[in-house]
Amino acid sequence: MASMIQPGSNDRIAVLGGTGQQGRGLAHRFAHAGLRVIVGSRDADRARETVAGWSRTGQPVEVADNAGALGRANIAVLAVPFMSVDPLLQQLQPHFKDGALVIDLTVPVTFTAGKMELVDVAEGSAAEHVRARLPPTVRLACAFKTVPAHLLGAGFGPLDCDEFVCGDSDEARSSASALVALLPGLRPVDVGPLSRARSIEQLTVLAIAINRRYKVHDARFRVIGL
Amino acid sequence: MASMIQPGSNDRIAVLGGTGQQGRGLAHRFAHAGLRVIVGSRDADRARETVAGWSRTGQPVEVADNAGALGRANIAVLAVPFMSVDPLLQQLQPHFKDGALVIDLTVPVTFTAGKMELVDVAEGSAAEHVRARLPPTVRLACAFKTVPAHLLGAGFGPLDCDEFVCGDSDEARSSASALVALLPGLRPVDVGPLSRARSIEQLTVLAIAINRRYKVHDARFRVIGL
Repeated sequence: MASMIQPGSNDRIAVLGGTGQQGRGLAHRFAHAGLRVIVGSRDADRARETVAGWSRTGQPVEVADNAGALGRANIAVLAVPFMSVDPLLQQLQPHFKDGALVIDLTVPVTFTAGKMELVDVAEGSAAEHVRARLPPTVRLACAFKTVPAHLLGAGFGPLDCDEFVCGDSDEARSSASALVALLPGLRPVDVGPLSRARSIEQLTVLAIAINRRYKVHDARFRVIGL
Repeated sequence: MASMIQPGSNDRIAVLGGTGQQGRGLAHRFAHAGLRVIVGSRDADRARETVAGWSRTGQPVEVADNAGALGRANIAVLAVPFMSVDPLLQQLQPHFKDGALVIDLTVPVTFTAGKMELVDVAEGSAAEHVRARLPPTVRLACAFKTVPAHLLGAGFGPLDCDEFVCGDSDEARSSASALVALLPGLRPVDVGPLSRARSIEQLTVLAIAINRRYKVHDARFRVIGL
């Protein structure tokens, strides 16, 4: 019943890579929205330090190493750099629960000497790359790929943009959409099957390019006519 | 001096494929904005029929076959389906003026039995495919790839969205941006080199997907935070 994600539900959300800028911001906002959050990190102590400074949230926030966080959750948010995905998923294989939902946030870009490069992913997108490395019983959706990490981490102000969701099943997409809709000012836009992540990830490239060319930090998108 | 594109300038804009929904709408709006427009088509008579029903514009609108239109213009808008690009550019080779600016609108999608498919383009994007088929003295920019054709053709109401521009030189980009800015409600967003068309064309895929899933016609994008 992950599609009923709401404050007070029994869902437990592990944010893997929850001490990075993006993961930290999302985890804090989820907790602020009343969800039960477990902040995961390579090192549980780092997760503890991250959470220590947070304002009081409706639900207590738990911390764990990534495997421990995943083992306690029915929803896992994958908020690590794309380059860390392979070793992390390999390590986490035994810890996925049947029917768990993974939300992939990764975008296959690297920054070399300040220059952004899109990594060529054999599967077509980071999302499809992740899908190929998850147990078949685990469902996968994409979300939060285009909302700026910088903005996620800056308090709880409205995010004022749309967030594109795709996934490998209607249920995965509707659960991810419900999660997006919990954050003030974020509207989920369901764009269909997992392969649409190819388009979504290019949107992130465009946002980064706009940030750099126009010297802004928070370029993001709104769909007009919807 | 193409970057000075404005009503009353000496620029002459050929819209190649100017009888299709997108080309027609753009040509009419350019003329309405006071530019000197030549509507090109495979068949000049079709171009004449298209223009016959138009409301009076500041400048008289000329018609010609595509080669004739190109021969009279310093700016050419490529508004044909992607599948027609190769034969058209081959036919037009001798007609390009040195230093002319081409604005590429094409997106490499096909519709087979109602299903949208992205054509795999060896060069990485339709824009780069076009670049490889233009004389080296001709400059190339992309624009108008994401504004819905349906909306372009529906009168002169404000388009209310952003339009992504990229190109092979600063001058090509600034000329294309000036052209975008002439249409009410359209803001140019310069995203850099021509290869960024890979991202822009994926944005069009996303807009089509949104139109279909949400049963709307005019999904388009606005950049927030800019």
